[in-house]
Amino acid sequence: MPNPENDSAWTRLIDRLGRLPGIGKRSAERIAFHLIRQPPEETQTLATALNDLVTDLRVCSECGNLSEADPCAICADTKRDRTTVMVVERPSDIVAIEQLGSYRGLYHVLLGRLAPLDGIGPGEMNTEPLLERIRSSSIDEVVLATTPTLEGDGTALFLMEQLERLGVRVTRLARGMPTGSNFASVSKAVLSDAIQGRTSMNAGQ
Amino acid sequence: MPNPENDSAWTRLIDRLGRLPGIGKRSAERIAFHLIRQPPEETQTLATALNDLVTDLRVCSECGNLSEADPCAICADTKRDRTTVMVVERPSDIVAIEQLGSYRGLYHVLLGRLAPLDGIGPGEMNTEPLLERIRSSSIDEVVLATTPTLEGDGTALFLMEQLERLGVRVTRLARGMPTGSNFASVSKAVLSDAIQGRTSMNAGQ
Ligand SMILES: [Zn+2]
Ligand SMILES: [Zn+2]
Repeated sequence: MPNPENDSAWTRLIDRLGRLPGIGKRSAERIAFHLIRQPPEETQTLATALNDLVTDLRVCSECGNLSEADPCAICADTKRDRTTVMVVERPSDIVAIEQLGSYRGLYHVLLGRLAPLDGIGPGEMNTEPLLERIRSSSIDEVVLATTPTLEGDGTALFLMEQLERLGVRVTRLARGMPTGSNFASVSKAVLSDAIQGRTSMNAGQ
Repeated sequence: MPNPENDSAWTRLIDRLGRLPGIGKRSAERIAFHLIRQPPEETQTLATALNDLVTDLRVCSECGNLSEADPCAICADTKRDRTTVMVVERPSDIVAIEQLGSYRGLYHVLLGRLAPLDGIGPGEMNTEPLLERIRSSSIDEVVLATTPTLEGDGTALFLMEQLERLGVRVTRLARGMPTGSNFASVSKAVLSDAIQGRTSMNAGQ
């Protein structure tokens, strides 16, 4: 007789994998088959990466950036320009922009982007805290720095509609970035130009 | 400046998720967004389930079943009929069949099944050890108990071709099970009938 405990470690993993977005029961089982057949170290490394995510990183309650501290080092830096906030999709986008050394404002990390075809809606982005931040602070310019893709553009348009009601100036990165590219693939000069030439999204401003 | 360590915990997780079958970089990032936004306990539970898989379970070197011991309790049971081996796709299929209490032979667990549309080929199943087992043991009947689906049938036909060359009698479960069903969804009576009425797959036997 197989030990019922064995079956439960197996089905428990499939259950947990199946809760991840875009992974059905069938994919979960396929992944579990893969995990049990690969060297155990590989699976343990994945487990460690998951644990590191939650033990090492916090979501900054001000900007949504990942950081060991809350607020993050950028939000806590009193020398930053607190009137400008740049909205990015992911923490690594901040790293790319900080490496330029030219942007001195704050950030807001969406931790996602609209992807209607994948069933990802506004509720799955860090949107409401952004609006609340604008309402209750001295921010007068929001720079939309979503990726120059169909989904990034859709996300920017959605945010624009929300932000315009708050009477804040909304700009977006100049299309110096080739459509379909991402922050990691363009040169620093291209990215720097895109920040410099950012354009207003409000009608008539 | 964001701590480079943060970015690395983040990108390390995305890298690891992206190595799983069927998960590209884009899905990996989507899952990571989900994980960082859900309560940390949820992510830790997934990490624990992964660690449990490799610490609690071994793949039995004889049959491929998941077990705390190697060989597993079934392979180690000297009272089982060692001339019959039933080939199943997954460990939980064994649990379903053992609950009947009527099958007394051994098992072989494929830990997978052919799924050409998903790019899953023979190399991703536990096939070669099955052939080796037949060559080097007293097994005279192989019962193919793959699931009664298109992919399960394809897997059975593939195995049949391999097994026939070894001169072993090959049977498969009778079609008492409705096509498209699985072991968990049929009644014990249906499953029992299917085992009783198993048919030979060798031509002219
Ligand atoms: Zn922050
Ligand atoms: Zn075994």
